[in-house]
Amino acid sequence: MNTVADIKISRVTKSKLSELNLHNIPFGKFFTDHMLEVDYENGAWGTVQIKPYQDLALAPSLAALHYGQAIFEGIKAYKNEEGEGAIFRPFENFKRFNFSATRMQMPEVPEEIFIDGMKELLKLDQAWIPTFAQHSLYIRPFMFSTDEMIGVRPSEKYKFMIILSPTGPYYSKPMRIYVEEKYIRAAPGGTGAAKTAGNYGASMYPTAIAKEKGYDQVLWMDGLEHKYVQECGTMNVFFIIDGKAVTPSLEAGTILAGVTRDTVIDIFREEGIEVEERPLNIDEVISSYKSGTLTEVFGTGTAATISMIKELRYKDFVMEFDVEKTSKTKQVATTLDNIRYGKTADTHNWMVKI
Amino acid sequence: MNTVADIKISRVTKSKLSELNLHNIPFGKFFTDHMLEVDYENGAWGTVQIKPYQDLALAPSLAALHYGQAIFEGIKAYKNEEGEGAIFRPFENFKRFNFSATRMQMPEVPEEIFIDGMKELLKLDQAWIPTFAQHSLYIRPFMFSTDEMIGVRPSEKYKFMIILSPTGPYYSKPMRIYVEEKYIRAAPGGTGAAKTAGNYGASMYPTAIAKEKGYDQVLWMDGLEHKYVQECGTMNVFFIIDGKAVTPSLEAGTILAGVTRDTVIDIFREEGIEVEERPLNIDEVISSYKSGTLTEVFGTGTAATISMIKELRYKDFVMEFDVEKTSKTKQVATTLDNIRYGKTADTHNWMVKI
Repeated sequence: MNTVADIKISRVTKSKLSELNLHNIPFGKFFTDHMLEVDYENGAWGTVQIKPYQDLALAPSLAALHYGQAIFEGIKAYKNEEGEGAIFRPFENFKRFNFSATRMQMPEVPEEIFIDGMKELLKLDQAWIPTFAQHSLYIRPFMFSTDEMIGVRPSEKYKFMIILSPTGPYYSKPMRIYVEEKYIRAAPGGTGAAKTAGNYGASMYPTAIAKEKGYDQVLWMDGLEHKYVQECGTMNVFFIIDGKAVTPSLEAGTILAGVTRDTVIDIFREEGIEVEERPLNIDEVISSYKSGTLTEVFGTGTAATISMIKELRYKDFVMEFDVEKTSKTKQVATTLDNIRYGKTADTHNWMVKI
Repeated sequence: MNTVADIKISRVTKSKLSELNLHNIPFGKFFTDHMLEVDYENGAWGTVQIKPYQDLALAPSLAALHYGQAIFEGIKAYKNEEGEGAIFRPFENFKRFNFSATRMQMPEVPEEIFIDGMKELLKLDQAWIPTFAQHSLYIRPFMFSTDEMIGVRPSEKYKFMIILSPTGPYYSKPMRIYVEEKYIRAAPGGTGAAKTAGNYGASMYPTAIAKEKGYDQVLWMDGLEHKYVQECGTMNVFFIIDGKAVTPSLEAGTILAGVTRDTVIDIFREEGIEVEERPLNIDEVISSYKSGTLTEVFGTGTAATISMIKELRYKDFVMEFDVEKTSKTKQVATTLDNIRYGKTADTHNWMVKI
């Protein structure tokens, strides 16, 4: 078992931070001074290295580029008003990461590497956590297969890394969403509940079609009947119907068990708003809209946080929502922000100090 | 549009070929002296480079490692008894490659790069085509996204490469196949017809479970009813029932349109064996086995060529096949070999001279 003491740290001689304006910085484009890297070989993880962010020398036969054993997580670190950095619910992402690893026939990453390594890396680069409202430091743990062999089989070698990217608001404007009926993201027995690279690549063509039609994202339907609401491209989705929050349930294993989704469910319940996790048919969405009981729709995700949806289109039927009146969306977003930026008591111990 | 003249060639100073024994060489482990590499940027393909096989310098934020825009093909080159090299049906793989590219929201690769580039590379490394029976030079064209940015969106930059690997027989022994009921490879609306990395990563966990039970591969069922035969891990599949060859049809878009599959269909028809491309229910497979009309099962693929299946297990029901008596499997394998190794007239012009 690795311990924190095993981390080998090599620092940059000069930080790049002063060259960058962190205000409204685009998502995922700039990276901090350091990265974490550790290799798995002969059934064991090697020495964890934290070193200057740099290119990797990878063989053209790198297994991940051919056979897609590649998973990741998205986590955020925030600074409170005292300038102290903390990570939002990293243990939930740690658990999901290893769930993804199992589904993709990859080794689990021990907590000593994933969590303690992340903290060490953040200690070194904590000056990179922006202090502006709606800004944060996005943490990207990921793992990919590194055998240099193109036989189809699980790789024997893997690389686990963590990179850090300062970020501003992701979907800053209310979104227009296109309900996708033909293409699917996942089906039961597939990889929909795993955060694996292939799920995202598969989503890009249908999303591009929706973008051509003027929409920001698709809302996926289930793979069997193309009738049950699943998730948006990079977000789980909530519907406020009759004052209750309704969100698709997880039992089919076709959608991502979002950490923000789980957080929003907890917040709503604590604030006295009933939450229903259950299958949600698009026909119910439409009839609720027509009867006036469907009042708000929003997406949740680590990168997206809470994203208001102002339009939902199913076939030729357009549902519009007045984002000025989305009181429950704003309520949960405010509660979540207050916890993340340390403005309110963190009664769940969701924030993990760096 | 690129032309062959645009290829920039940089040769090795000394070939590695003399260091290697090509006889019974394992699949996909050793690569030839040179590789082809070309980058797509600002909506256009750059200069095609053929250069010594070497590592690539890739950023940790490489889009392909996070979001799985990655596709490939598998093609083989053979030497005839006069020592002349030829490629088996590369135009079919070229078409399928660009089909995969479209589904994964990647740019198409022009024929001048894919085909002419491949020929140039093979001219340089044709001494690597083994001359032993059942040996060949495996050609691996592949493309992956190269944006150095972790926002979820189609990459703006891509790299197309071709690498070459000498190979012996792939599945040399008759195989034991486990019919997978729970996990799926694909469903309608997904990426099952595209040769994309994620499809293979997704298959490894179910395949590992089958291997623990003593089987070599799984036979996938459809994603909707888990009843209709799809394909094996790396092969299409044929059943000889009542003297006819039955193979799953392609219209659902859930299985790979194999080039070897298509070739086998043509050969069977020319040799007077009826072929049915149609949905095939596992219950029909079982009842045909029980009545004695199902006599042979085999897999087809570029890497696998024609692979005899000696056992098929569905739930607790085991179907065994006497591979000594699989006359139609052997017949088509022999015809195919004779064409590939130039022992019979290539009436279809399947072999493309280097």
